Amino acid sequence: MKKVAVILSGCGVFDGAEIHESVLSLLALEQNGASWHCFAPDVKQHHVINHKAGEESVESRNVLEESARIARGNIAPLAELDPSAFDALLIPGGFGVAKNLCDFAVKGAEMTVDPEVKTVCQAFANQGKPAGYVCIAPVMIPAVYGEGATATLGTDPETAAAFSAMGGKHVDCSVEDIVYDEQRKLLSTPAYMLAGSISEASVGINKLVSKLVGIA
Amino acid sequence: MKKVAVILSGCGVFDGAEIHESVLSLLALEQNGASWHCFAPDVKQHHVINHKAGEESVESRNVLEESARIARGNIAPLAELDPSAFDALLIPGGFGVAKNLCDFAVKGAEMTVDPEVKTVCQAFANQGKPAGYVCIAPVMIPAVYGEGATATLGTDPETAAAFSAMGGKHVDCSVEDIVYDEQRKLLSTPAYMLAGSISEASVGINKLVSKLVGIA
Repeated sequence: MKKVAVILSGCGVFDGAEIHESVLSLLALEQNGASWHCFAPDVKQHHVINHKAGEESVESRNVLEESARIARGNIAPLAELDPSAFDALLIPGGFGVAKNLCDFAVKGAEMTVDPEVKTVCQAFANQGKPAGYVCIAPVMIPAVYGEGATATLGTDPETAAAFSAMGGKHVDCSVEDIVYDEQRKLLSTPAYMLAGSISEASVGINKLVSKLVGIA
Repeated sequence: MKKVAVILSGCGVFDGAEIHESVLSLLALEQNGASWHCFAPDVKQHHVINHKAGEESVESRNVLEESARIARGNIAPLAELDPSAFDALLIPGGFGVAKNLCDFAVKGAEMTVDPEVKTVCQAFANQGKPAGYVCIAPVMIPAVYGEGATATLGTDPETAAAFSAMGGKHVDCSVEDIVYDEQRKLLSTPAYMLAGSISEASVGINKLVSKLVGIA
């Protein structure tokens, strides 16, 4: 059975991991015969958004503790993730990626990836292990893989331009499809960058996960 | 297109709505051609559990605001739910049902259902509209439907005994199956009362939602 490490970035689309994408990813891993193993950085969230009002709250929350909600407590600190023990990496989207794993939401193309996250992602790349980046998560790809890595963030010209400015090669992609950088064993799909519903998001995610497990 | 009202009870298995069950329910509704409309009580959670440590936290959170994470903000206060505008009702599980929608987690068979929740659920019953109760949610069925209503909470003898003590008729059921009280158009499935994985939970939930939409 293929073992896939999943990095979560909180719990909720506006300040954490996108919940639908995360659950659909875990479900697809099981349905493709792989096991999932969740990890998240043990750090304070960038901020907390009241998802009903759409406004920032005064609260403070921890990325690992909130991610644990999605994983039903079955999660470990990112510091304990040893890439050599896994066959592949999977990162669901949500603003948590752009706020807690890197700072794309604040700095755009001037962003940096959290050093702990970057080290882990690069280890998977350096060991020739496949990785799947969902939704907004591919913004980290240029920093992880360097110049010329190919991925999609959907069809938004501004986001694509930022990806290119960081050295990535952006490919427009529809919600039900995936982009595969064969040389780097690197997969991406737009999910809620474009999806209007859970069932729409599920099509691309299922395709990505099936391919990810297949090449792992 | 059938319109299904979904009542959420927070966000996270230990103090809110079970996230996997909620997402799988919404996905299945879409895949069966129905639309979903989320609601939650605008009240303080019973308490907040750190899902990594498994311990109670000193924080205070609001059921509607946390449920909004699962619904991506697309949710309304339960007070705005008019049963006559919907074809069916669906309630995913999680300890949030037993802590925020009723007090089964504290009082067992001596529990009462939150009056706002009870009024809404009884309106669906009185209008002859079908309802699906997932996981632990069926503990509310005796209070909503009265003596003799038939449902499942899985196979745990203690939980089944509490259900019977409240006047319900409990039927043991495996994780991939559903129980149907035809007279009351009332469906239930054990989900994470028994499931060991998301894919296991999805089988019974898909079956329940398919039947629910079919009779709505």
